[in-house]
Amino acid sequence: MNFSVTILGCSSATPTLYRHPSAQILNVDERLFLIDCGEGAQMQMRKFKIKFQRINHIFISHLHGDHYLGLMGLLFTFHLLGRTNEVHLYAPNELKKIIDMQLSASQAQLHFPLIFHTIKTDHKKILFEDETITIHSFPLQHRIPTVGFLFEQKKQQRKFKKDILLKENIPHEAFERIKAGEDFTTSDGRILFNKDITVEPAKPHSYAYCSDTGYDESLIPIIRKVELLYHEATFMQEKVNSAKEKLHSTAIEAASIAHKAEVKKLVIGHYSARYDDLQPLLNEAKTVFENTFLAEEGKIFDINII
Amino acid sequence: MNFSVTILGCSSATPTLYRHPSAQILNVDERLFLIDCGEGAQMQMRKFKIKFQRINHIFISHLHGDHYLGLMGLLFTFHLLGRTNEVHLYAPNELKKIIDMQLSASQAQLHFPLIFHTIKTDHKKILFEDETITIHSFPLQHRIPTVGFLFEQKKQQRKFKKDILLKENIPHEAFERIKAGEDFTTSDGRILFNKDITVEPAKPHSYAYCSDTGYDESLIPIIRKVELLYHEATFMQEKVNSAKEKLHSTAIEAASIAHKAEVKKLVIGHYSARYDDLQPLLNEAKTVFENTFLAEEGKIFDINII
Repeated sequence: MNFSVTILGCSSATPTLYRHPSAQILNVDERLFLIDCGEGAQMQMRKFKIKFQRINHIFISHLHGDHYLGLMGLLFTFHLLGRTNEVHLYAPNELKKIIDMQLSASQAQLHFPLIFHTIKTDHKKILFEDETITIHSFPLQHRIPTVGFLFEQKKQQRKFKKDILLKENIPHEAFERIKAGEDFTTSDGRILFNKDITVEPAKPHSYAYCSDTGYDESLIPIIRKVELLYHEATFMQEKVNSAKEKLHSTAIEAASIAHKAEVKKLVIGHYSARYDDLQPLLNEAKTVFENTFLAEEGKIFDINII
Repeated sequence: MNFSVTILGCSSATPTLYRHPSAQILNVDERLFLIDCGEGAQMQMRKFKIKFQRINHIFISHLHGDHYLGLMGLLFTFHLLGRTNEVHLYAPNELKKIIDMQLSASQAQLHFPLIFHTIKTDHKKILFEDETITIHSFPLQHRIPTVGFLFEQKKQQRKFKKDILLKENIPHEAFERIKAGEDFTTSDGRILFNKDITVEPAKPHSYAYCSDTGYDESLIPIIRKVELLYHEATFMQEKVNSAKEKLHSTAIEAASIAHKAEVKKLVIGHYSARYDDLQPLLNEAKTVFENTFLAEEGKIFDINII
């Protein structure tokens, strides 16, 4: 099962020659979740061969331009490509008015339903749930209302071993109990132990996205033990006062959150335009949390190989 | 004197892997005029080393997304780079509301004055004039109110020949009359013929921008004899019915306008995403107007070497 994050942009507010503003794709078994959508995201998606039609859910963390200014162009492109299936957009309320005003100015009526879900920015809230995944938003500490997103796969049922259903005459009505872990007694009285006829399902994966935020320990219980954490790291530690003032984080602060929350792997990003070379940011983070990686455009973080 | 157009984007509404949506820079002696501002324009400006601080005037032809969705990001970047000098924005009225709503959502107040000039889309109108240049908007035929832009340098006064003011004792109060073409009689009664003491100023240059528009002969008197014409050419001639329906033009239609308006040079652009290879569009245009060129990203059309 695919569970991976592709970085489309990793710059902070001022894009540079080599870095676009924030946007990521979470691929959960070929369902694509777009997380933030900075300017140029649609061009980056073409570059990295992201299939537009597989995106049905878009999450916008807050309304600073570097996190959403690519959205309107992407929606127009969906429209022009003839899309008819729904898009679910999870975002702060004002974005609906901004979109409606831009649709009105262009006298366009989208060919597909755009279903707007207003994000609450003051408490953790479930945004989406089905049989395989749960998605929450949770508040971050930033200059305007901002949320992070937590994606958690659900634990799947056990699966029958290969060919077992050909070898044994197990009635259909027993399937659910066996997949839930029970043993099975055959019609001739043999006990088939569950461990002999089923296999463990894949471990459920988890991903948390925290951009933009000041250092905030109240995040720790929310993201505890996620496999992959993306946490912004706008500044080096020498700029910790700028970070505090602007409600951003340093690389060391991001790593401290990762360490205290006992996550498996940390990805940092949202770099200030002042840094051409990102290695010093990585080095600082690694002093606190060794399993840290740099977000870079086009890089794919596969959660199966953490 | 520099008078050149740099292409930042030349795609129609759906950007492709290699083509950004419409945006151009007209450089008039190092004053930069930004004409349309599709998504990604600011990244293109970095790529092609355009000096952000030299842009004081921005012209938006209409409110289809591919002509203005890069503007908000550019304004935020101006702000973050610490700009304090005025930006004059010439655009349809609704853009002011769209900008204000996005500033409000981000709780940002720009550090520089953004002076909004509402474009009238129903008749030719002067937008800007100083001692060196006149800029008009004029209506185009498109699905929503749309204008083109005409940039015309003013004829400059004649200039004194090198060293003449050292050789002859010409009083300051006679300068303007001589620069306007009059002869001068010296205090000892000699006539200095104007042609002997002055030189012809550089020929004033002109540029017209027509995107997006259906084929429209009413443009011809407005753009007659401009040196450089940019005219959209979304389609090949086999798609002339699509062009008519969508109020776009074919390459041959663009070339016909160039021919009938007796312009010196034509640049075509705003290509449909269906065309990977642009050469056939150029070939078709050249059957009607030989001096045609393709807009391509980063290409500079220097009007001094037409």
